[in-house]
Amino acid sequence: MAERVTLLDVSARDGLQDEPCVVATEEKLAVARALHEAGVGEIEITSFVHPRWVPQLADADRLASQLPPGPHYTALVMNERGYERALAAFASHAAGGWGLVFVSSASPRHNQSNNNRSIEQTLEIFDAVAARARRDGVEIHGAIACSFVSPYADEQTDPAIVGGIARRYAEGGCTLITLADTIGRADPYTVATRIDQVAASLRVPLSLHLHDSFGYALANVYAGLLRGVRRFEGALAGLGGCPFAPGAPGNLDLERLNRFISACGLETGIDPTALARASDRIRSALCGAAPLPERKPTATAHQ
Amino acid sequence: MAERVTLLDVSARDGLQDEPCVVATEEKLAVARALHEAGVGEIEITSFVHPRWVPQLADADRLASQLPPGPHYTALVMNERGYERALAAFASHAAGGWGLVFVSSASPRHNQSNNNRSIEQTLEIFDAVAARARRDGVEIHGAIACSFVSPYADEQTDPAIVGGIARRYAEGGCTLITLADTIGRADPYTVATRIDQVAASLRVPLSLHLHDSFGYALANVYAGLLRGVRRFEGALAGLGGCPFAPGAPGNLDLERLNRFISACGLETGIDPTALARASDRIRSALCGAAPLPERKPTATAHQ
Repeated sequence: MAERVTLLDVSARDGLQDEPCVVATEEKLAVARALHEAGVGEIEITSFVHPRWVPQLADADRLASQLPPGPHYTALVMNERGYERALAAFASHAAGGWGLVFVSSASPRHNQSNNNRSIEQTLEIFDAVAARARRDGVEIHGAIACSFVSPYADEQTDPAIVGGIARRYAEGGCTLITLADTIGRADPYTVATRIDQVAASLRVPLSLHLHDSFGYALANVYAGLLRGVRRFEGALAGLGGCPFAPGAPGNLDLERLNRFISACGLETGIDPTALARASDRIRSALCGAAPLPERKPTATAHQ
Repeated sequence: MAERVTLLDVSARDGLQDEPCVVATEEKLAVARALHEAGVGEIEITSFVHPRWVPQLADADRLASQLPPGPHYTALVMNERGYERALAAFASHAAGGWGLVFVSSASPRHNQSNNNRSIEQTLEIFDAVAARARRDGVEIHGAIACSFVSPYADEQTDPAIVGGIARRYAEGGCTLITLADTIGRADPYTVATRIDQVAASLRVPLSLHLHDSFGYALANVYAGLLRGVRRFEGALAGLGGCPFAPGAPGNLDLERLNRFISACGLETGIDPTALARASDRIRSALCGAAPLPERKPTATAHQ
């Protein structure tokens, strides 16, 4: 039997948070159902940030409480307030059926724009949230934005910062660490090197969150596969980006990712035809979506 | 200094041979000049097949005789008649400034369509052409179409056939062997495996000729780089395909290839801005090109 690779869909979170419209909760639920029908077992569904910053995800509480059972859901939290909201919203879900994702950026400047504080201040908040998650038995993942390349031409990514965040996540009890190529500029040599650097210092499994600006994402997936990574993230229709990372393009298209992993002889358990239906579903949801409220966000959480 | 990777442009041969129009010789010469100005040192310029089969390349003799000095040129030959034409057409070029490419397909059925004979019959012709090339001191490369995946759903690629053709090429004096993914369906694991299989039995350097149907080409380039391949082929504007290989898409875009190799920290010596001008040049040449003559080709040489 072919070796298993897990794909995680981030359409409803990273995919929708930059769209100039607000997709209705019912439509997001329909997309989640379509993903489940296609065999997608992991869905990053929303972010518990203040609705002022990301009006596209203002329905996080209602959405989380109404999600169909089946997939494992994750949601971003940025602080203890978000943690409390997530805990309440997922209350009806079985323990182990959901978890949280905390995001910090390895680019000091991007972290300041994205989290509105320094990396160390962000990690102090992580420590507080993680302590509560451990006490409550809630699963927590750690994501590191800009793990490979800085969005700023005059800033070099410091592998020591990536490694430091990863260690802090591991010490806080994260069961998974996601390395994100926020601007889609990573090359496979850098991906391979960074995985080795991070993996050398901890035993937590890694996931890759790739954007596809220059079409390097699948080469980077292959670099990850060769390094033993068996979990990758993507979005339907290649949706998404990051308004606080200059030049950030869409996520790696989940259909392309699924096709590539299958072509490589590995098994995702995802039916390509049903996945195409899920893509159609989110495309039509976007067509019918209400325009974004007047006020534009100025700071929010992205990876 | 960064390690050097050689890129070979196949725009004028594999790129133009399937276009529904005939690009004027002067335009092809202008594209060759633009490629030279961009720093492209290797150009596969045409094919000495009968004009009946590929009217797009009917100007092979005149084109070859007028090429600007600078790049190293190669041209396809399918038989001794083509060899004689090439020898005459390149007569004014310095020895070592040009060479020939012989193509056989590893798919028996594709070879029958493409070369109009069996693989063994094709290799007997190769032996005769190679004997003359050795005697005349003419450089010869060997290309293997469908090296990774057959274009036919009910035909499996036989690595032993690929290895057999490669050995025959090496014995005939080929100084380079090109493995071609004619339909762009190869995955990087297969590319890596095939390179190992072929490289194990011979000492001739390998080149990869990749098409990009599913966007796997750059992942396959990375697989090649990891296996020590330092020569890759591409076409301006991702032109080209193969009418005798069902589903064959365009070649890997030379600009994307060049950008990717640079992103990987390797050096091609090609200026991306000047290369973009060469792309514009071939695009405008196609816009102004005469429609293809009435008679459609029914068999010809492709890889």
